[in-house]
Amino acid sequence: MQYSEMSKEELLTLQAELNQQYAEAKAKGLNLDMSRGKPSATQLNVSLGLLDAINASSDLKAENGTDCRNYGVLDGIPEAKKLMADMMGTTPEHIIVYGNASLNIMYDQVSRAYTHGILGNTPWGRLDKVKFLCPVPGYDRHFAITEHFGIEMINIPMSESGPDMDMVEQYVNNDETVKGIWCVPKYSNPQGFTYSDETVKRFANLKPAAKDFRIFWDNAYVIHHLYDDKQDEILDIISECEKAGNPDMVFEFASTSKVSFPGSGIAALASSEANLADIKKSLTIQTIGYDKLNQLRHVRYFKDINGLKEHMRKHAEQMRPKFEAVLEVLNTELGGLGIGSWYAPRGGYFISFDAMEGCAKEIVAKCKEAGVKLTNAGATFPYGKDPKDSNIRIAPSFPTPEEMAQAADLFVLCVKLVSVEKLLAK
Amino acid sequence: MQYSEMSKEELLTLQAELNQQYAEAKAKGLNLDMSRGKPSATQLNVSLGLLDAINASSDLKAENGTDCRNYGVLDGIPEAKKLMADMMGTTPEHIIVYGNASLNIMYDQVSRAYTHGILGNTPWGRLDKVKFLCPVPGYDRHFAITEHFGIEMINIPMSESGPDMDMVEQYVNNDETVKGIWCVPKYSNPQGFTYSDETVKRFANLKPAAKDFRIFWDNAYVIHHLYDDKQDEILDIISECEKAGNPDMVFEFASTSKVSFPGSGIAALASSEANLADIKKSLTIQTIGYDKLNQLRHVRYFKDINGLKEHMRKHAEQMRPKFEAVLEVLNTELGGLGIGSWYAPRGGYFISFDAMEGCAKEIVAKCKEAGVKLTNAGATFPYGKDPKDSNIRIAPSFPTPEEMAQAADLFVLCVKLVSVEKLLAK
Repeated sequence: MQYSEMSKEELLTLQAELNQQYAEAKAKGLNLDMSRGKPSATQLNVSLGLLDAINASSDLKAENGTDCRNYGVLDGIPEAKKLMADMMGTTPEHIIVYGNASLNIMYDQVSRAYTHGILGNTPWGRLDKVKFLCPVPGYDRHFAITEHFGIEMINIPMSESGPDMDMVEQYVNNDETVKGIWCVPKYSNPQGFTYSDETVKRFANLKPAAKDFRIFWDNAYVIHHLYDDKQDEILDIISECEKAGNPDMVFEFASTSKVSFPGSGIAALASSEANLADIKKSLTIQTIGYDKLNQLRHVRYFKDINGLKEHMRKHAEQMRPKFEAVLEVLNTELGGLGIGSWYAPRGGYFISFDAMEGCAKEIVAKCKEAGVKLTNAGATFPYGKDPKDSNIRIAPSFPTPEEMAQAADLFVLCVKLVSVEKLLAK
Repeated sequence: MQYSEMSKEELLTLQAELNQQYAEAKAKGLNLDMSRGKPSATQLNVSLGLLDAINASSDLKAENGTDCRNYGVLDGIPEAKKLMADMMGTTPEHIIVYGNASLNIMYDQVSRAYTHGILGNTPWGRLDKVKFLCPVPGYDRHFAITEHFGIEMINIPMSESGPDMDMVEQYVNNDETVKGIWCVPKYSNPQGFTYSDETVKRFANLKPAAKDFRIFWDNAYVIHHLYDDKQDEILDIISECEKAGNPDMVFEFASTSKVSFPGSGIAALASSEANLADIKKSLTIQTIGYDKLNQLRHVRYFKDINGLKEHMRKHAEQMRPKFEAVLEVLNTELGGLGIGSWYAPRGGYFISFDAMEGCAKEIVAKCKEAGVKLTNAGATFPYGKDPKDSNIRIAPSFPTPEEMAQAADLFVLCVKLVSVEKLLAK
């Protein structure tokens, strides 16, 4: 029976029951963290061999003879470019391999556009107004970068096939103050949606009013499948943009943070020849080069794209039971109640839950009170403001499947309790 | 006999001899690089054990229990802070440990001052004029950063005790557009001078007209001695600034680039509590954290400051003969001729040579023509312009001592030849 169809008496009875259950749950003294997309220690063990991939006796030369122990090479050793290109579905000539974090590359791209401009265009810092489109819900750290630079962010609704492209086209093709859009195109953070072929093609065929409009294509979960048999695929944005006559329109990002070790992986940018040349003019001022030994370590360990895929299968074995534990509880406990909706992703790091309007903050607070930490409600929106106070991001990766089930039990209890309170307050 | 005292006939005879020698030298087909401060392969071998310092069987937790394989920790694991603090002569609470390069930290400090300002002051990008003082000769990559941001650079003469402090005080204490100064205070690049105690104290006691004036103190060669018995010491700028009531006036930088592996080391910033808090507000937008496994690798390998010192002794054993080979040739071949001056440094990576005015470019070109690559003449000055066309930076680290001697032989020949031409043209 849907909660909305219940009488006041039924709701009050239910509330009393739920309050009793909540008191019992609190008494358990849980201490679980579902707040960030952080691998568990067991999952990190899968990558331990990386630390043996090179040692003091190894040949430490790259395939072109570069001594990886010394200065030099701004844009990455060739075999690391190849590995990252294969992972991102593009070719090595589009790649710069950076240091340990794609977030840092994204920050630098915005910062450099702000201080020096893109391909000869006016630096954003000299313009009165710069806007970014933000498909929502999305990744809080993206929004934090654009907020940090005083860039106005505009919410764009998401569906299972990607952002609302009518709205994207309307903004990008007509408003020259719109300079960028944040995208997580595959297994999106937090919903787990993958942009459809039509969406990618519409992106590639944009006719931006601003010459320096760029798609910030954060392909963070490009090989992060949960299943062997059910995998999302996505078109290569770089070649689609080339075909559409917009070769310079995209900056694509990826890293091995959630492949090898978060913070100790390698990251890459993919873009057009003209963009890479423009970037390197600044990059050579910023650094002499990135950690080539870590690039070599990754290539020696994973060998090639097949090695990466095989490795990600091992991750999936650990992640799948956690996702399934949450989804099982959501389906069993909330199915048919009309107080929330969710999606079963085929990859990525998150499950996105939409509560009844005006309930998300209270649900997160109640979970926290009983020992389960969730991402702050609102965090998935620019400025931390979810207009409907509805979206909650669940990150199942860190706890064990058993802990995940416990945490999910508490979560659904809090969803029920807050929903009942909301209905009673009407 | 000094060249300047020679008659025209003597000079012509000498020129003919030198031209003959130069033709013979060119015929040898040398191919040597003295252009950058790059360790040799043999010297890199000294650090190979670093790659065995952690492996798949190691305990990968920091001393405070942090799993170094996972996300988290913005400012470095405690033991890495301690190691870098000891190396820099300060204490861990002043330290942020970054990624692989101090150059990148310096760039970020300038870039952030440009976009967001320092401690609430107006961002430099919004000011009509920003100036930096540049002790000369200095490090080309410093000057490249400030040039990249359109900052006007002012030459400050160097002496064996450091920059001309009368001039520094005159500018800093009276001109509020002067926002910074680039310093390599110990074994300076390229001269190998170490700032005297008086110089450091005068720096600490500056009374800047600009509240956001900062000393960019690049302590790149802080433990890079050439000798066991003759070592320069330098006062700790951080505590001197504290004592002088100017705790926020300095950003100090260092790295293990020339201790472990260039590009694969760890780097650090040292500054006041207020500056570090200000920096972290931006840093947390830029990155989730730096490579903690590499921090752990360095700490496990070097253990403590004594381990670092012992390690640097092994480097010195390799570097010393190369420096001595060059100095021997300079002394023997150019001593008393009045066509150049140099200094025998007790540490660092360079020997700085001052030719007769107007000769540096031609000397570098002649060396190149005969197969010996030197740093471009002028590179040690802002905008690549040496007003006297006199200074040449010699980097002895990469070739073997034998190659170094060969290269030095060619170098002194070119110095003689160009000097004679110069004198004849008068």
